[in-house]
Amino acid sequence: MAKVITFGEIMLRLQTYDHQRLIQATELEATFGGGEANVAASLAGYGHDAYFVTKLPDNLVGAWCQSELRKYNVKTDYIARGGERLGVYYVEKGASQRASTVTYDRAHSSISTAQPEDFNWDVIFNDAVWFHFTGITPALSDGAAALCLEACKVAKNKGLTVSCDLNFRKKLWTSEKAGQVMGGLMEYVDVVIANEEDADRVFGIRAKATNITSGELSDEGYRDVARQLVKRFGFSHVAITLRESISASINNWSALLYDGKEFYKSKKYHINIVDRVGGGDSFGGGLIYGFLEQYSTQDTIEFAVAASCLKHSIEGDFNLMSVQEVRNLMGGDGSGRVQR
Amino acid sequence: MAKVITFGEIMLRLQTYDHQRLIQATELEATFGGGEANVAASLAGYGHDAYFVTKLPDNLVGAWCQSELRKYNVKTDYIARGGERLGVYYVEKGASQRASTVTYDRAHSSISTAQPEDFNWDVIFNDAVWFHFTGITPALSDGAAALCLEACKVAKNKGLTVSCDLNFRKKLWTSEKAGQVMGGLMEYVDVVIANEEDADRVFGIRAKATNITSGELSDEGYRDVARQLVKRFGFSHVAITLRESISASINNWSALLYDGKEFYKSKKYHINIVDRVGGGDSFGGGLIYGFLEQYSTQDTIEFAVAASCLKHSIEGDFNLMSVQEVRNLMGGDGSGRVQR
Amino acid sequence: MAKVITFGEIMLRLQTYDHQRLIQATELEATFGGGEANVAASLAGYGHDAYFVTKLPDNLVGAWCQSELRKYNVKTDYIARGGERLGVYYVEKGASQRASTVTYDRAHSSISTAQPEDFNWDVIFNDAVWFHFTGITPALSDGAAALCLEACKVAKNKGLTVSCDLNFRKKLWTSEKAGQVMGGLMEYVDVVIANEEDADRVFGIRAKATNITSGELSDEGYRDVARQLVKRFGFSHVAITLRESISASINNWSALLYDGKEFYKSKKYHINIVDRVGGGDSFGGGLIYGFLEQYSTQDTIEFAVAASCLKHSIEGDFNLMSVQEVRNLMGGDGSGRVQR
Amino acid sequence: MAKVITFGEIMLRLQTYDHQRLIQATELEATFGGGEANVAASLAGYGHDAYFVTKLPDNLVGAWCQSELRKYNVKTDYIARGGERLGVYYVEKGASQRASTVTYDRAHSSISTAQPEDFNWDVIFNDAVWFHFTGITPALSDGAAALCLEACKVAKNKGLTVSCDLNFRKKLWTSEKAGQVMGGLMEYVDVVIANEEDADRVFGIRAKATNITSGELSDEGYRDVARQLVKRFGFSHVAITLRESISASINNWSALLYDGKEFYKSKKYHINIVDRVGGGDSFGGGLIYGFLEQYSTQDTIEFAVAASCLKHSIEGDFNLMSVQEVRNLMGGDGSGRVQR
Amino acid sequence: MAKVITFGEIMLRLQTYDHQRLIQATELEATFGGGEANVAASLAGYGHDAYFVTKLPDNLVGAWCQSELRKYNVKTDYIARGGERLGVYYVEKGASQRASTVTYDRAHSSISTAQPEDFNWDVIFNDAVWFHFTGITPALSDGAAALCLEACKVAKNKGLTVSCDLNFRKKLWTSEKAGQVMGGLMEYVDVVIANEEDADRVFGIRAKATNITSGELSDEGYRDVARQLVKRFGFSHVAITLRESISASINNWSALLYDGKEFYKSKKYHINIVDRVGGGDSFGGGLIYGFLEQYSTQDTIEFAVAASCLKHSIEGDFNLMSVQEVRNLMGGDGSGRVQR
Amino acid sequence: MAKVITFGEIMLRLQTYDHQRLIQATELEATFGGGEANVAASLAGYGHDAYFVTKLPDNLVGAWCQSELRKYNVKTDYIARGGERLGVYYVEKGASQRASTVTYDRAHSSISTAQPEDFNWDVIFNDAVWFHFTGITPALSDGAAALCLEACKVAKNKGLTVSCDLNFRKKLWTSEKAGQVMGGLMEYVDVVIANEEDADRVFGIRAKATNITSGELSDEGYRDVARQLVKRFGFSHVAITLRESISASINNWSALLYDGKEFYKSKKYHINIVDRVGGGDSFGGGLIYGFLEQYSTQDTIEFAVAASCLKHSIEGDFNLMSVQEVRNLMGGDGSGRVQR
Repeated sequence: MAKVITFGEIMLRLQTYDHQRLIQATELEATFGGGEANVAASLAGYGHDAYFVTKLPDNLVGAWCQSELRKYNVKTDYIARGGERLGVYYVEKGASQRASTVTYDRAHSSISTAQPEDFNWDVIFNDAVWFHFTGITPALSDGAAALCLEACKVAKNKGLTVSCDLNFRKKLWTSEKAGQVMGGLMEYVDVVIANEEDADRVFGIRAKATNITSGELSDEGYRDVARQLVKRFGFSHVAITLRESISASINNWSALLYDGKEFYKSKKYHINIVDRVGGGDSFGGGLIYGFLEQYSTQDTIEFAVAASCLKHSIEGDFNLMSVQEVRNLMGGDGSGRVQR
Repeated sequence: MAKVITFGEIMLRLQTYDHQRLIQATELEATFGGGEANVAASLAGYGHDAYFVTKLPDNLVGAWCQSELRKYNVKTDYIARGGERLGVYYVEKGASQRASTVTYDRAHSSISTAQPEDFNWDVIFNDAVWFHFTGITPALSDGAAALCLEACKVAKNKGLTVSCDLNFRKKLWTSEKAGQVMGGLMEYVDVVIANEEDADRVFGIRAKATNITSGELSDEGYRDVARQLVKRFGFSHVAITLRESISASINNWSALLYDGKEFYKSKKYHINIVDRVGGGDSFGGGLIYGFLEQYSTQDTIEFAVAASCLKHSIEGDFNLMSVQEVRNLMGGDGSGRVQR
Repeated sequence: MAKVITFGEIMLRLQTYDHQRLIQATELEATFGGGEANVAASLAGYGHDAYFVTKLPDNLVGAWCQSELRKYNVKTDYIARGGERLGVYYVEKGASQRASTVTYDRAHSSISTAQPEDFNWDVIFNDAVWFHFTGITPALSDGAAALCLEACKVAKNKGLTVSCDLNFRKKLWTSEKAGQVMGGLMEYVDVVIANEEDADRVFGIRAKATNITSGELSDEGYRDVARQLVKRFGFSHVAITLRESISASINNWSALLYDGKEFYKSKKYHINIVDRVGGGDSFGGGLIYGFLEQYSTQDTIEFAVAASCLKHSIEGDFNLMSVQEVRNLMGGDGSGRVQR
Repeated sequence: MAKVITFGEIMLRLQTYDHQRLIQATELEATFGGGEANVAASLAGYGHDAYFVTKLPDNLVGAWCQSELRKYNVKTDYIARGGERLGVYYVEKGASQRASTVTYDRAHSSISTAQPEDFNWDVIFNDAVWFHFTGITPALSDGAAALCLEACKVAKNKGLTVSCDLNFRKKLWTSEKAGQVMGGLMEYVDVVIANEEDADRVFGIRAKATNITSGELSDEGYRDVARQLVKRFGFSHVAITLRESISASINNWSALLYDGKEFYKSKKYHINIVDRVGGGDSFGGGLIYGFLEQYSTQDTIEFAVAASCLKHSIEGDFNLMSVQEVRNLMGGDGSGRVQR
Repeated sequence: MAKVITFGEIMLRLQTYDHQRLIQATELEATFGGGEANVAASLAGYGHDAYFVTKLPDNLVGAWCQSELRKYNVKTDYIARGGERLGVYYVEKGASQRASTVTYDRAHSSISTAQPEDFNWDVIFNDAVWFHFTGITPALSDGAAALCLEACKVAKNKGLTVSCDLNFRKKLWTSEKAGQVMGGLMEYVDVVIANEEDADRVFGIRAKATNITSGELSDEGYRDVARQLVKRFGFSHVAITLRESISASINNWSALLYDGKEFYKSKKYHINIVDRVGGGDSFGGGLIYGFLEQYSTQDTIEFAVAASCLKHSIEGDFNLMSVQEVRNLMGGDGSGRVQR
Repeated sequence: MAKVITFGEIMLRLQTYDHQRLIQATELEATFGGGEANVAASLAGYGHDAYFVTKLPDNLVGAWCQSELRKYNVKTDYIARGGERLGVYYVEKGASQRASTVTYDRAHSSISTAQPEDFNWDVIFNDAVWFHFTGITPALSDGAAALCLEACKVAKNKGLTVSCDLNFRKKLWTSEKAGQVMGGLMEYVDVVIANEEDADRVFGIRAKATNITSGELSDEGYRDVARQLVKRFGFSHVAITLRESISASINNWSALLYDGKEFYKSKKYHINIVDRVGGGDSFGGGLIYGFLEQYSTQDTIEFAVAASCLKHSIEGDFNLMSVQEVRNLMGGDGSGRVQR
């Protein structure tokens, strides 16, 4: 059981039922999610000591969020309490040609206004082996970016492996700002996760001739992006997720892992989607698990993709699959036969 | 913002959850729908002044129905109140090879017994530019047919464009009766919407060799039907919807628009169905929108089909998509990628 | 209306909503199901006098279960009351590559500890024409096996046709025990239902080269299994269901019926799954119906497969389709067009 | 187990949740109820062979209704199928000073248009000992009144005891019509159930000085009404229910039974209401049970009142209490202590 | 039909079901409410042209909120769109000795950052006769206070009657700030609504010896407060609501209206609470209705109290009672007898 | 933060909604509860390190239960996994005169068949200060009784305070067996909790003339029972809960604490019940809290009674109130005024 730290924002996720539009809703499903919390939940479910670090308001909503993290065995010991509010995001789940919509109401959240004294990184990283964050955390505010940088430095100092999912969010910042801030963080990062869009929008790294909307993905294009990323930032590994959006109901899903020398391509899964939100984070959780367990590089990417494939069948941000279940799929059984 | 009038019946739609059969149900989803109300809801959602004209009982159920129309911005100023009851229809949503069932309990509804004095067509059509009804309205009762005829005459007199979706309902009348009544109404109609079945059952206009059940649709057959319709009734436009029912879960969907000279064929969409009821009406709403906005003929049919494609992903009779969302699909993005 | 007897266990089925994992659940859908009760429900729905024989605890839960059987017109006159408990099974419904899980909590149920005096087989089989059980009943306990044997003897004595669905459950017994007990029962059985896995695990009868997990089914392999079964036990008919599990969301489904001379192969259906549990039992119910109605052998297997195809679209163990609806599909209409 | 026949209308009861007004509702609780069906359900629950006779439409809604009756062990053998529709009634459950509302949509129901040939009273009353109907049945239509009269005659002829709950409904007929029709039926009735309002509105029989709205009930007034009823119609027994409506949440409830000589007054219960609809019918069911079991007159009225007191704690029209549970309350235990 | 304007904030109200604490919740009831919107909803329900003026974010959540207002017939023509977010408040409904909790997350809402150019008061107040706001609006921000003052001035100029519910919220501002800002607004106010706590905390106006927590209310104390308010601000009328909180489940409710000369005291209602939030606003709505209809002063206060008594039986912020229903209670019928 | 250990059984609690009887249910609320787990949940909520010790099956249901405990901050480190099943109990919530029913299905649970090697008491009690169990644990099986005895011995040895709630369950054992087993355990117990019924049925200790059913409780009788308990077993404290069951909706609730010298009587609360199950356990949790915090004896009993009073307003077995909320009530505020 390794101690893993993730740091970022978690929000209340309010989703309509049965593909309703918000305008139709009279009740909302209430769960919690956020990039780094989702990764922690994956790792907690696989049996590691996964800590999610954030700041939550000191009210009933913050307590509720914390209880949900505990439920899924995410350690909450380093969560600060205070600040103004917990961010909220509203989800309308799409279907067929209708896209899901996510409406964020996250400004002014407690984590976005957190202060250096809220987190004692020295204590937090004690005995830890891995630190993970996404590009959302530094995008929240300048303060959050500074906290993130500080965390990276301490983590690096204490010998942790650092991973980052670029996760560009255009509603939070511009490409210019992102490139500048993320550029400064990358020197501490060992393992980076991206899709082509991220690499392009954050660092202007771009492959040729890929039509994202139409879902036509060029394999060589992605390899090129990975090579450029390693070249510029010296990552030990670059993982690129390859989503082919056939519709809101059907996606193909695979990934590529590059260790600076070889490319390892995963199987591709044809997915009937239950819930696509958090899919990328479950990939990150699976990837880190593979590294922690010292799986071979091929097995690492296969585990990560199988894990995130299964996440698409689960409602909510968190991937609630066991190692055994992921390995079954990775081992070839995607038949969905009833397990009695 | 154009003033558009639709006239017909709206019913309480009681649907089981999760594909249940009625016999399993202990609770029912309660919404409202009806061909002309659905068209008005589409147009209201696109930003036009859409009025739905009907008669509702003067009780809590009638008030409830009216509030639901208002919610979706349908204007209810010309709705008469009184009469015996609001019609009800029960829906079991099918899946895969199991068909959805619709059980109507609509006889004796307030609109079916409405009187000429319930509606002042002169006032209703004032400043309006479009009048729409379906073949269901005159099928409700002789009185309703007379009201419909009166409305058509006034509308025509006042220079409105009149559209009609043939929408043959064999539970409401025979082909003989339909042919006779609808025949009398067609002289006021500019734009007609039909599928092959409608044209055949109402007017005996038939294409060769199309197997409706198996979903094999002959393109030339439909063109032939359109030509015959224009020839017999002198419509400015005939729109024919082309549904290929692969199963209750999967349909292909496209349409054809004929302006008396050229045929404009839309893209075809492969749809994972959430709710198919009201799909035809959302086509009508999209079509009228295209005409009101003076879209090109090709864009008009593309907008109508994209709109109704999206409707299949929405629970309930009303199509709750914005113009922008429809145009996105029309413009080629059916990938269903999350909109953040 | 023929009197049909089925004998076995029924359980409370507790299922999460919306593909949730149990860990996410705060409410559970509560229905009832079990192999033989499911067959009785099918036959009751088709209009026969179907009696389900079991033992239920003499408490509110037993009464609840009995009321649910009555609701679906299953006759409960011969149900004994007493014993310790009603078995429970928990279902997580899978999707796409994620398998559904079934967690049984059925030990110590009233039926597993039932005594000979609980059932007067002479009375029960009076005027009856068919007796059905599955391999689950004798697997419950030695007592249940003895009751099953006694029932078979009396049924045979009184001239009933006896059918058995092998239904091997590895959690209930070993292949050795199953082979021995089931072997002793087979002499009373006329019609046997199996899949390859059953025949192999219960009797060691195996076809060549079929990869069950991957869903590659060899037609000739199944014929071979059927021949061996008839040869060893002298069944009048062997029915073999052929499930190709593409995923938890999509299955292909067909079957084979062997009358000792000819093989009758059904159409194959491509199914979007709503609920797969009870699919095999609905096949049994359809098969028995075909025999009772003296359908041709081909029609019998077509009816059975069409019935069970439709079952996959219905939530819960029981197949709630009418004869007419099954015949419509059997007759070729799987288009799922709305029935108004 | 006595065979008891009740005859009348059953409707689909659509109720909002959580005291919502209809205008707020998006889902409705769907159950079934009607005066005579409710009485049958009570008696079925107490272990008698209770048959409910009506006519239901021959569609999925009629089948659903019939299955619900079967579930609660009401015998449905004599139910005719056909006609136009099943009546519906909408319930908003009130609370505190806000009254519950019931909006009926029952006109044109199958039972209201039933024909003499739908029911073979000779067969229906064979071996039966008791016939019960309410004043609602003859109020439905002239045809229903004729059927009711015919049933009374045959029942009387065959020696059954006949009971009638006056149950005046001002929405169905006028006092004049009611008085005339009911007057003609009373000669066949042995046991009549009424509240003061009924006796007044149907027969113009009135006690002095009771303010119904304010809930002030004069004991002597009710005795006077009972005496007048016996005097005019020669009933063997008159039961009068005494409801004191303190609010929609709190009622007092008791009753009076008069055997032409003595008055038997029940205990009075102070009730926190869960569902008040069907309260009177559960009284009727309890009363008939007492007579069938040959309870003493005092015990009969106590059982009837205790039964209907408990009904107020149960959601839906049917009283789902066992004889033992009613006797416990009748015997003095209304403490509501948990039964483990 | 009078044109009435209310101005303030509306929020998304997220409430747990069944008295759950937030920590237990997995779904939330989603409605909308806010002091001034609630008053508008009351008046819309009574048949007046009630406009609610606010600013809503230009996203799906803002559109949802607007549709809900339309549903209840509140006019939304003057609602500005833009800004950052819609405020949210979380409600746990208490029971018995457990208090309900309201957790606000309202900072940075669109209305709190609205600008003078968002509202054209001259147009808004055209033809209007009444303007209503509460002490919450100016408490939102300095900008909102300025908008409120501007609105008051224009309203007064155009001859409207202005009413204000003091509604002190200690989470929004201090007594000092409130006193200063509200003091400046009071010169435009004709009718003020308060409870003793408000008058004290906003203006330091206090009666003697009333223990609010224990619910012991001194009648004379309230009269004294009313007199002081009139004296200081020259209101035409002061209405004081008198809530006796016996528990979260039971309250007594009455009010006092002072016209500067006489005191008019209403009946007192003993209420079983369904939903207490919005109770005060429904009083305001009833009061304004009485004034608009030129009821006598006694009838005005009786109508207001009866209306708000009934509101306590309705889930959600809005009071959904008709004039007739309120008048029935006002006229003495609080028996809650079923209305058929 | 003190380390507290509780030991016993936890079950899946399946409850119908809205006071339904099981026979009406189609869905069940799923929570978890059991005497000792409930006490642990109370103490965890008050901020102590509360460990619940039990054995859960090693399947998805066991994992679900464990996650729920974690959610409410109960420490699960010492929970053994294995054995056959998790017990289930079904709850129908009563109302008014109708009692709630609890149907247990708990035999053969993992904890009832646990073995000595499942628990290392030496480790478990390390640094702990309090051990709590109820009379249910030794009643489960002889093995469970032996485990309980062993736990008591180690706890006593290590200097913990031991408390026991007698909690007699007649479905689990006889008074004879209970008296013998519990008698042997009492020598290790410091603080005992009982109601008169418990003391009588377990130890034959009885007060004079109290009618439990009618809810008439004699104060002196309870004092007498307390004195006898101390005399026989030498407890440091005896707490007796005094429930007056007026109905299933209304109870009075108070308690008595005896320290061998003085009697401390709490306030009495008049409660509108939301959920009564777990009420006694929340008293135990409050009592232990008072002792741990070294409250005065009077404050200890007041805290315990206020805590359990509030529990009656919360759905589910666990009392989810904070120390501050309990102290507010204890301090006199039971007005239920909204906390904003």
